[in-house]
Amino acid sequence: MVVALKKGTPPEETRAFAEVLEQQGVTVHISQGASQTILGLIGDTSRIDEERLRAQRLVEKVLRVQAPYKRASRPFHPEDTRIAIPADGKVKTIGAGTFSIIAGPCSVESPEQIIRVAQRVKEAGADFLRGGAFKPRTSPYSFQGLGEEGLELLLTAKKETGLPIVSELMDINHIDAFDEVDIIQIGARNMQNFPLLKELGQRKKPILLKRGLASTLQELLMAAEYLLAGGNEQILLCERGIRTFEDFTRNTLDLSAVPGLKRESHLPVIVDPSHACGLAWMTPALAKAAAAAGADGVMIEVHNNPETARCDGEQSLTPEEFAPLAEVLRKYAALEGRTR
Amino acid sequence: MVVALKKGTPPEETRAFAEVLEQQGVTVHISQGASQTILGLIGDTSRIDEERLRAQRLVEKVLRVQAPYKRASRPFHPEDTRIAIPADGKVKTIGAGTFSIIAGPCSVESPEQIIRVAQRVKEAGADFLRGGAFKPRTSPYSFQGLGEEGLELLLTAKKETGLPIVSELMDINHIDAFDEVDIIQIGARNMQNFPLLKELGQRKKPILLKRGLASTLQELLMAAEYLLAGGNEQILLCERGIRTFEDFTRNTLDLSAVPGLKRESHLPVIVDPSHACGLAWMTPALAKAAAAAGADGVMIEVHNNPETARCDGEQSLTPEEFAPLAEVLRKYAALEGRTR
Amino acid sequence: MVVALKKGTPPEETRAFAEVLEQQGVTVHISQGASQTILGLIGDTSRIDEERLRAQRLVEKVLRVQAPYKRASRPFHPEDTRIAIPADGKVKTIGAGTFSIIAGPCSVESPEQIIRVAQRVKEAGADFLRGGAFKPRTSPYSFQGLGEEGLELLLTAKKETGLPIVSELMDINHIDAFDEVDIIQIGARNMQNFPLLKELGQRKKPILLKRGLASTLQELLMAAEYLLAGGNEQILLCERGIRTFEDFTRNTLDLSAVPGLKRESHLPVIVDPSHACGLAWMTPALAKAAAAAGADGVMIEVHNNPETARCDGEQSLTPEEFAPLAEVLRKYAALEGRTR
Amino acid sequence: MVVALKKGTPPEETRAFAEVLEQQGVTVHISQGASQTILGLIGDTSRIDEERLRAQRLVEKVLRVQAPYKRASRPFHPEDTRIAIPADGKVKTIGAGTFSIIAGPCSVESPEQIIRVAQRVKEAGADFLRGGAFKPRTSPYSFQGLGEEGLELLLTAKKETGLPIVSELMDINHIDAFDEVDIIQIGARNMQNFPLLKELGQRKKPILLKRGLASTLQELLMAAEYLLAGGNEQILLCERGIRTFEDFTRNTLDLSAVPGLKRESHLPVIVDPSHACGLAWMTPALAKAAAAAGADGVMIEVHNNPETARCDGEQSLTPEEFAPLAEVLRKYAALEGRTR
Repeated sequence: MVVALKKGTPPEETRAFAEVLEQQGVTVHISQGASQTILGLIGDTSRIDEERLRAQRLVEKVLRVQAPYKRASRPFHPEDTRIAIPADGKVKTIGAGTFSIIAGPCSVESPEQIIRVAQRVKEAGADFLRGGAFKPRTSPYSFQGLGEEGLELLLTAKKETGLPIVSELMDINHIDAFDEVDIIQIGARNMQNFPLLKELGQRKKPILLKRGLASTLQELLMAAEYLLAGGNEQILLCERGIRTFEDFTRNTLDLSAVPGLKRESHLPVIVDPSHACGLAWMTPALAKAAAAAGADGVMIEVHNNPETARCDGEQSLTPEEFAPLAEVLRKYAALEGRTR
Repeated sequence: MVVALKKGTPPEETRAFAEVLEQQGVTVHISQGASQTILGLIGDTSRIDEERLRAQRLVEKVLRVQAPYKRASRPFHPEDTRIAIPADGKVKTIGAGTFSIIAGPCSVESPEQIIRVAQRVKEAGADFLRGGAFKPRTSPYSFQGLGEEGLELLLTAKKETGLPIVSELMDINHIDAFDEVDIIQIGARNMQNFPLLKELGQRKKPILLKRGLASTLQELLMAAEYLLAGGNEQILLCERGIRTFEDFTRNTLDLSAVPGLKRESHLPVIVDPSHACGLAWMTPALAKAAAAAGADGVMIEVHNNPETARCDGEQSLTPEEFAPLAEVLRKYAALEGRTR
Repeated sequence: MVVALKKGTPPEETRAFAEVLEQQGVTVHISQGASQTILGLIGDTSRIDEERLRAQRLVEKVLRVQAPYKRASRPFHPEDTRIAIPADGKVKTIGAGTFSIIAGPCSVESPEQIIRVAQRVKEAGADFLRGGAFKPRTSPYSFQGLGEEGLELLLTAKKETGLPIVSELMDINHIDAFDEVDIIQIGARNMQNFPLLKELGQRKKPILLKRGLASTLQELLMAAEYLLAGGNEQILLCERGIRTFEDFTRNTLDLSAVPGLKRESHLPVIVDPSHACGLAWMTPALAKAAAAAGADGVMIEVHNNPETARCDGEQSLTPEEFAPLAEVLRKYAALEGRTR
Repeated sequence: MVVALKKGTPPEETRAFAEVLEQQGVTVHISQGASQTILGLIGDTSRIDEERLRAQRLVEKVLRVQAPYKRASRPFHPEDTRIAIPADGKVKTIGAGTFSIIAGPCSVESPEQIIRVAQRVKEAGADFLRGGAFKPRTSPYSFQGLGEEGLELLLTAKKETGLPIVSELMDINHIDAFDEVDIIQIGARNMQNFPLLKELGQRKKPILLKRGLASTLQELLMAAEYLLAGGNEQILLCERGIRTFEDFTRNTLDLSAVPGLKRESHLPVIVDPSHACGLAWMTPALAKAAAAAGADGVMIEVHNNPETARCDGEQSLTPEEFAPLAEVLRKYAALEGRTR
């Protein structure tokens, strides 16, 4: 960590300030020039509070050289994290050289719908079934999901098809209903719901953590750090588009997140092109791009009848559109050396 | 609401589609041209699901003419909402031609600190005391606030000074501890925490609802609609900066929000320049601008010793800096015809 | 085009307004409801000035259904545009099912440098050589490019290797020096330099038009429309990253632009991952993603010695890094059915 | 300037690298720790190329402590720049404690229009007349301005009213026609048109330089530095809104720019609320906020008949709306201690 002091700071104040910093467990090197004094903080700076440092009267600028996350970082855990999900008597692996396809409808609507979609995406080669039971909706007047009933329907579809399931948790008070959900999704709007993250850090459940609409990669990794700090190491990071000025698409898919997160962290990275663009016709192109960028998997919305979907129909593929996409995605993943 | 159909939609399909829409309680006018057919939906369109409409095979584009919020809208409630807070035997009014100054530290740290700051801001003319007990922090390793102990210290400061208090709630499970808190703050990261909003909609407590970092004014009003739909009408909207590419300031204060929200809605609008810019020296200029733009009040961070603040010291004014600002803010508010 | 009138507009004013609009060559259908009147404008609306319409006292909202560009649009020219560049006695095609690789240094620095890089990228399979002679630099104190001397060096490299060349024009007064440049690049900062676009619309030269940092896809297509309206039909659109809040990368590559532009327009789309991310190690992942998303080619920075590069060294690949990337890009392009 | 080296850089390489840097005229202090080596560059770092430094194999991160602009910076020129414009036999001052009101139509349309508007805004207390003759328009099919004829009409209005005039230059080849224009406006889209800036740096003409839609304050100051480096010191900086995700307003006015630019630089700062929000009804609130934030003036669109305006009618005030605004702006400016 580097601290540039304000011009004209007298040497004795500089020394006194350096001593205060050294009491926090770092070594301080002072570079005093004609017009500018710079302090180099050497050692474990993870406990130094950057904001507090910036608030000091003597301080002009602060540069953090080490990342502020630790357990999420690649140096802390050089190997790729491998997440193992029991599925139909076997084990599905996420990360560590595999490519996973998660597919299903935005929201669970009826037994027929979810079982039908589950069967179709399984036939087409999906590895996981997604479906929303508790839905975050911008309007209080929109359909809010079937809730616990929706989760039960998902579990029925899991039994019928053997596909492990992914579903979103919005409220820690619902956690008991998620016992048999294989992967708990934390949505973009809850990425910085810190009380929720703290609770889930205590559980031994895989978490798919979606990037917030206005969150940097560093903030996403800090949110993962909340889970890791609690002891939960089964985390999937999910890029799902950020908010920008461009309104051609619903959000702007930031595929730099894939190589960026994989370099900074050991956690697997899933891409959700459906929510990123919000357009069914564009989803295949972005899904292929995600595979080519090195993602560990994709999550794709599939609905047997997008026109009657109770939410997000505009971005859902039909099973007929999904099947050839799943096939071609395996080819792209193979070019990247990934196995199923 | 206006729906443009895809080119080449045959008249009989258009008519059939219009009938389906009319079953949802609206009247549909069909404008059929050589190359384009347009449907005008007349009547109460608030229950029409825009997303679902967009997903229809026949639909090219949808334009919503009426706002998607209802109870938050100016036509629904033409008069300004007036919020009355009991304070020291009297009543403080927010909105409806008044100008309120909320001041205090980012986080409550000790009895001495919070009582000292409370006394100083009261002397300087503040109307409310703010202070954080539960703190949303990007890093799990940063100070997370004193929690319930912090709330107790705030209540002591309230007793000492008579200033009503504002403090942030992050988790509905803490709600009991907020019984004597006068205004509950919902932070920017929780603006779309829908389960939390639904719960607070059931309570009779004034809520200061902060705009999310990536939220449009419309989304802020939809979040307020969650509270209003539940029956809670005591809502203060708070502009606190949005995230943009500019990194000179921590966020970009969007003062258009003030005239924009006041035109669209009857709810009072408070501006938080401290969190928007994150720079103490810039805060007075932005606070004055907020008053001139027509805000119903400002919320300003004040700390007796910013250098030792456990969070956000960089953006805190000292009581010595706050006092002349509070005085000049009253002059700006007076130019806008506002009383204390 | 759809126009929603303000509530309470009397029928006689509505009719008078419709008549004024009809004088501009469109047919107006009036849908009058209890609370809202909607006008549907049918016919050629490309000459209707949307801004002016919005300024009318009676007008509440305007929705444009047809795109505001015409010659750049897919309906106007359903076939993909094919651009043919003479190269070494043969012809190189851009667009129409091919995949082009443009490579070379950010700026031309010396005869040795540019000839060496040209030879190496040709060996590795590049189709075009890029190199900057006139450089747009944020600081007046940075290296501004070799100017006309740089163009001459590029032409020497072209002679040596047979690779056609791409170079940026910043000032129309330099146009004569670009006679033998095969493709003129218009940089992101000049995308809306309308006098420059008008001049280039008059020339018969292929133009690579880069998307502005804050430009929507629609604005990029409108900039292309300036060229097309002047008669120049040889246009390559180039996605090179937009400005967002994320600072992990220099800009945010928006790969949605590839399927989006190819659906809206017939013009070929090139992706520049080097300028988008500004990081050499990330460039290969994004280049592959661009190919998978359906781009007609990529433009990649290659420098024989990035550490001594006079600009943008951080984002340049070495020839050793470029060669295997070019090879694998051909495989991705082949999966997309593209030929060289 | 501070350079953090990659972990594990051997001491002898560090010393060799430091020597190379010292050859560029700075002194390098080396702080070598167990895991991290940091170089402090002391002295005149303005000629050190940051990008090139970042491209070095040994370099992990770079922090610039001094601003990259020099002549535009407050330390270089501690006093406020005062710009004096001859007007009607007297002199109008911009900056240095004054508050200037620039008003007029987006584009000059006819002698009647421009003279009428000029008379009305003068009566209301405007100091300068603005009017566009050469217009940057997104669409090639929109009205492009009257060109030189428009400038002549502006000069007629100047003669009639004595108001000095402001008009936009888009192409250096038109410069001769701007001889009698008092202040040349460089529009947001040309803020980084470096050849144009270089040319204008050679002229002795006041320049109103608008911030680009995606430009940081630092980039705006670097654009001003191009003008200053050429010798032109008469520069007005203009905040006119940046592009964000919010679409309630056309752009997002960033009033932090006012205190930010005035702290960093000695140049006067003008705010253009009309282009920022694009809404006539919102313009007064933002204009007042600009005055309260400490701006040196505002630029406001006024049109005698907004409904027939050939561009930007939606954001134009009528003279009847402008007059009371101009009056109240003087009161806000007076609160800030500014004279006319």
